[in-house]
Amino acid sequence: MRWSRYYIPTLKEAPADAEVVSHRLLVRAGMIRRLTAGIYAYLPMGLRALSKVEAVVREEMNRAGAAELLLPAVQPADLWKESGRWTQYGRELLRFKDRHESDCCLGPTHEEVITGLLRGELRSYRQLPLILYQIQTKFRDEIRPRFGLMRGREFIMKDAYSFDKDDAGASASYAAMFDAYTRIFRRLGLRFRAVEADSGAIGGNFSHEFMIPAGTGEDVIAACASCDYAANNERAETARPPHREEREPPPMRETATPGVKTVADLAEFLHIPPSGIVKTLVLEADGKPVAVLVRGDHEVNEIKVKKLLGADVVRQASPEQVEAWCGAPAGFVGPVGLDAPVLADHALWEREGWVCGARAQDRHLVDVSLARDAGIRDFADLRAAGPGAACPRCGGRLEFIRGIEAGHVFKLGLKYSKAMNAVFLDKNGREQHLVMGCYGIGVSRVVAACIEQNHDARGICFPPPMAPFAVHLVLLDRQSREAAAQAEKIYAELCAGGYEVLFDDRNERAGVKLNDADLIGLPAQIIVGAKSLGRGAVEAKDRRNDRREDLSLAGFAEEFGIFWESVRKGWGLTGSAV
Amino acid sequence: MRWSRYYIPTLKEAPADAEVVSHRLLVRAGMIRRLTAGIYAYLPMGLRALSKVEAVVREEMNRAGAAELLLPAVQPADLWKESGRWTQYGRELLRFKDRHESDCCLGPTHEEVITGLLRGELRSYRQLPLILYQIQTKFRDEIRPRFGLMRGREFIMKDAYSFDKDDAGASASYAAMFDAYTRIFRRLGLRFRAVEADSGAIGGNFSHEFMIPAGTGEDVIAACASCDYAANNERAETARPPHREEREPPPMRETATPGVKTVADLAEFLHIPPSGIVKTLVLEADGKPVAVLVRGDHEVNEIKVKKLLGADVVRQASPEQVEAWCGAPAGFVGPVGLDAPVLADHALWEREGWVCGARAQDRHLVDVSLARDAGIRDFADLRAAGPGAACPRCGGRLEFIRGIEAGHVFKLGLKYSKAMNAVFLDKNGREQHLVMGCYGIGVSRVVAACIEQNHDARGICFPPPMAPFAVHLVLLDRQSREAAAQAEKIYAELCAGGYEVLFDDRNERAGVKLNDADLIGLPAQIIVGAKSLGRGAVEAKDRRNDRREDLSLAGFAEEFGIFWESVRKGWGLTGSAV
Repeated sequence: MRWSRYYIPTLKEAPADAEVVSHRLLVRAGMIRRLTAGIYAYLPMGLRALSKVEAVVREEMNRAGAAELLLPAVQPADLWKESGRWTQYGRELLRFKDRHESDCCLGPTHEEVITGLLRGELRSYRQLPLILYQIQTKFRDEIRPRFGLMRGREFIMKDAYSFDKDDAGASASYAAMFDAYTRIFRRLGLRFRAVEADSGAIGGNFSHEFMIPAGTGEDVIAACASCDYAANNERAETARPPHREEREPPPMRETATPGVKTVADLAEFLHIPPSGIVKTLVLEADGKPVAVLVRGDHEVNEIKVKKLLGADVVRQASPEQVEAWCGAPAGFVGPVGLDAPVLADHALWEREGWVCGARAQDRHLVDVSLARDAGIRDFADLRAAGPGAACPRCGGRLEFIRGIEAGHVFKLGLKYSKAMNAVFLDKNGREQHLVMGCYGIGVSRVVAACIEQNHDARGICFPPPMAPFAVHLVLLDRQSREAAAQAEKIYAELCAGGYEVLFDDRNERAGVKLNDADLIGLPAQIIVGAKSLGRGAVEAKDRRNDRREDLSLAGFAEEFGIFWESVRKGWGLTGSAV
Repeated sequence: MRWSRYYIPTLKEAPADAEVVSHRLLVRAGMIRRLTAGIYAYLPMGLRALSKVEAVVREEMNRAGAAELLLPAVQPADLWKESGRWTQYGRELLRFKDRHESDCCLGPTHEEVITGLLRGELRSYRQLPLILYQIQTKFRDEIRPRFGLMRGREFIMKDAYSFDKDDAGASASYAAMFDAYTRIFRRLGLRFRAVEADSGAIGGNFSHEFMIPAGTGEDVIAACASCDYAANNERAETARPPHREEREPPPMRETATPGVKTVADLAEFLHIPPSGIVKTLVLEADGKPVAVLVRGDHEVNEIKVKKLLGADVVRQASPEQVEAWCGAPAGFVGPVGLDAPVLADHALWEREGWVCGARAQDRHLVDVSLARDAGIRDFADLRAAGPGAACPRCGGRLEFIRGIEAGHVFKLGLKYSKAMNAVFLDKNGREQHLVMGCYGIGVSRVVAACIEQNHDARGICFPPPMAPFAVHLVLLDRQSREAAAQAEKIYAELCAGGYEVLFDDRNERAGVKLNDADLIGLPAQIIVGAKSLGRGAVEAKDRRNDRREDLSLAGFAEEFGIFWESVRKGWGLTGSAV
C-alpha cells in the first residue's frame, strides 16, 4: 500500500483526554479518531489491526467447531423482559423506542437473542452440542467511558454461545473454548494469563478471564508465585488459617478510646498491631443490614459477601443506616450484642483475644472472644486477597499484578434456558433445558491491550500477527531518482514475496517519515536512503529492539527473508508465516 | 463443513409474512431468521453468502484505490444539526438519548460523520483525491419493513465517500466507482443495469442506480429498446413533442358535465379520447398550492415537480385545500382564471383545443387554448414516463421493467462540505470546499436480489460467486458402510482440491437430504448412493439446470474439475476459480 493513496493522519500531539498510552498512540498513529464520548472511528490502519485479530479469532473458533452467524444489533425489549434483565441490567443497556413506540435496546450482549432464536428450533439432543459465534459491534452506555478503545461505549466483540444436553457436555464446550482462547492469545503474540473470575451480571457459576498484564489494566490479578493458581482479585480465594488452640482470653472488658476514629488510630492508641483488631463493616444487602468482620489489616470483598448471601445488590450502609441498625456511630460498631446478622472472615478463626468496637461513642472492647462473647462460630472467605496473602491451593505467596480483561469464558448453566424456556427432547423423549455457556473476546480492546504491552517512547511496537502491515518501506530521498527507483523495485519484490508492505512514498522530510515509522510501529522497517545505497545496500530495522542491518541490493529478497525470520523469532514466533 | 456440526435449520413451510420468493427461500433454507419487524439474524449459511458479496466488494473497492475504514453506528445529533438533516431526514432516522441525555441517532448513512471526521484533518490539495469506504450495519426505521432482506430496518451496506479538489476530480472519482460497481455486479454473476436516478434525500445533482431486474423489484426502470438509455422511472425523462401549428381553436365555451367524476367518465361523456383532456392536479409544495397540468392519459411525477420548484416537500393537496385554494371541488379544477401558480407538462405543448375543469361543480370547459385562455406559455417535463413514451435520447420505444436497487452512486458536490465547512487549501493556499461523492451497495439486499433472480420451484440456484459453499456432497445411505466411506473419501479429496464443500452427513432420509440440497441451491451437488456406487460412480448434478452426470470413483478428482468448469461456464463465468 502506498501511503500517498492511503489515509494515515499521524499527529504530533495526543488529545488532552488520552490518559493511557494505547489511547495516545492509537490517535497519534492515525488509527482511530473520537467521534463522541467512548465512540471511535477506526481509520484504515486501525481497522487493519482489528482485522488481524478478527482473522485469528475466526480461524480458531472455526477450528474449535463453532459456527459463525450474525445477530441483530437492535433488539426488542420483550426478550430482555423474559430473562429479567430489562430491569436488572442497569443504564449501560441503552434503551429506546422505535417509530412504532416499541421498546428496543442496542445489544450489549446477546444471550437473550440467541436463546430466543434457538428455542423451538433446537428440538433434539441429536442437534447438540452446538456452538455459535459472531464478531459484532456492541454498545454499552458506560457512565464514564475512558482509555480510548479500552473502555468505549461502542466496541467490537466476538461473542460465542454453547448449547449442550447436560453438564458434562457444557464442560466439554467450555474446555474447547478455553483452549481456543489460549491458542488465540498465543497466536496474537500477547503475554496473557487465564485467571479464575467472578461471573458478574451475565450470571452462571464458573468463569475464567483472559488477562493481558499491563500497568494500566483496570483489574487486579492475584497470581501464585509457586503454582499456576491465578484469579481476578474480585474472587481470589484466601487460605483458611489453622486454628491455634490458645487458652481462652481473660474476660472481655470495655476501655475508653477518646477521639479514636480509624484502625490505625486505635492500633497506635492501644500499642497493638492492626492485625489484633476486628474491623466491623456494615453493609446493606438487598435493603437489609449485615455486619461483616475482618481483621484490621484486611479489606472486605463485597463480591464474596454478595455471593455468600445470594444477594442481588450489596453496598456500604450510610452513616445514618449504621446508627439506626447498630445503635452506634460508624467507628465504634462491634459484633458483641449486635442485633443484626454477622458474617466473619476466616482469618479471624486463627485466634482469640480481639479488640473491637463497643457500640458506644469513644469506647472499645478488649480481650474479646468471638465465640464466647459474640456467639460467632462460622467463618468464611470474605476478604479481598492482598499483599502477604497465601495461595489457597499451595500456600505459596500471591503476587498482585494489574491486567486488562481481553476475554471471558462463562458457564451459564440453565440461567437463560430456564428463564426463557429453551428446551430440547432428550433421548428418552423428555423435555430438558439447554445447558449453556457464553464466551467473549473484546476484539477492539485486544488491539489497545496489545499496545499497552508493546510500545516504547517512540511509539507502538506491533507484534507481527497484529501489525496492520509487516513491513514499513521508507523512501528517504524522494528527490533522488536512484533512491526512488530502488524503493519501487524493493516494493515490487516484497509484494511479490507475499509481504504486506506500507510504502511511505510521501513528499516529506526524512525525519518526519522515520518518526512516523517508529510511531506506527510495524515490525520491520526498510529504509532506502542515499547513504546506504552508496554501500549498495538498504537498511533494515527491527522496530522492537532497534536492531539494524544492511541488506544488499543484489541479494535483497533472500536477505530480507532471513531478517524477517529473525524479527519473528524475537517475538517468540516460529514457522515461515509471511 | 459437515452439516452435523453446523447449523442449517431448513423448514418445509415459509413464514406467513413472507411475500416475496427471496424472503421465503432465505428462511426455508435456514439462512435468516426474523427477530422483529425488519430485523433479521443471519444464520451461518446466510452469513457465508453475505461474506462472499463482501469479499468481492472489498477487492474491487481496494482495486479502485479506496481505503477501508469503519465508522461508528451511534452518532451524535450535533453533526446532523449542522447538515440540516436532523430535522429533514424524517422518521427513518432513529433518534434517541443516551444516559447523559445527549441526542444521538443510529446511522442510516454516514455523510455527516465522514465529513465531520475529515474536516480539519484533510488540509491540503496534495492529500486529494481520497476515497474511503466501509462495510457496516445500518439502521433505517422504515415504517413498513417488508420483503425480508429487501427492505429491512437493520441491514448491511457498503458505503463509500470521495473527496476531491474540483469538479473534474469528483467526476473521475465517480467514474472510478461506477466502474468498480460494474465489475462487482458482473463478478457476482448478476444480471444488472446501471440507470440514471434521482438523488433523493442524500442530495447532489447526478446519480446512477445499479438495478437488478426482477419481477418483485420495488422500482420501475424505463429502458430504451433502441439505445442504451435507462433511468429509474422516478426521473425518466419524456421527450418534448413537436408543436403542431394548428389554427387557433374556436372560442372557449362551458358545458354541463353532470355526475362526471373521473377523466374516464368525462372522455366517455364527451366522446373524446382521454388524451384530449387536461387533468389539473393540485399539490402542496412546502405548504403552498401549485396546480400541475398533464394530459388525461398521463400521470404527474411529483419528484420532477419538486425538482423544478426546488421544494423540500411536495404532496397531494387535501380535498379541503383544493376547495380553499381553487374555489372548486377536486374533479372540476382547471387552469382558466385560477389564482395559483400553474405548471404544465410539455405534452400539452403539442396542440390546442383542450377540455378542462371549469372550476364549478358539474361544469367543464371545451375548446380551451392554454396560451390564449389561461396565459400558459411555459411547458416542462413533469409527467411520469409510461407505456408508449419515446426515448428522450433517440426517440425509440421505452420499455418498463421492475428492478431492485442494489447500488447507488451519487455526485454530492458541495452539499455537505459547505453545510459543515469542510475545506482544504488549494495550491495557491486558498481555502476551498471539498467536492464530494457517495456510493452505496446494499450488501444484504444483493443476496436477496440474487435469489429473486436465481431460483426455481425447488429452491435457490446460487451463482458460484455468491454460493455459501461450491459443492453440496450428499450421502444418501448413511447405513451403508461403503457409501459412507466413499463419501468421506470424496469429501477429503474435494477439500484438498480447495473446493468449499458442505457435506450432508446427517442421519436423515434420502428424500429429505435431496430436497434440502435443492432448497439451499449450492451450484454443484455430488450424490453418493448405492445405485451409482454399483456402477463405480457418483452422481454429479448442476443445480441450475438439473444436468446430471456420472463421475467415476477412479477418476473423481479430475472428472469433478471438468464438471465444475462446466457449471461455471453455464453461469457465464470463465477462468479456473475454484
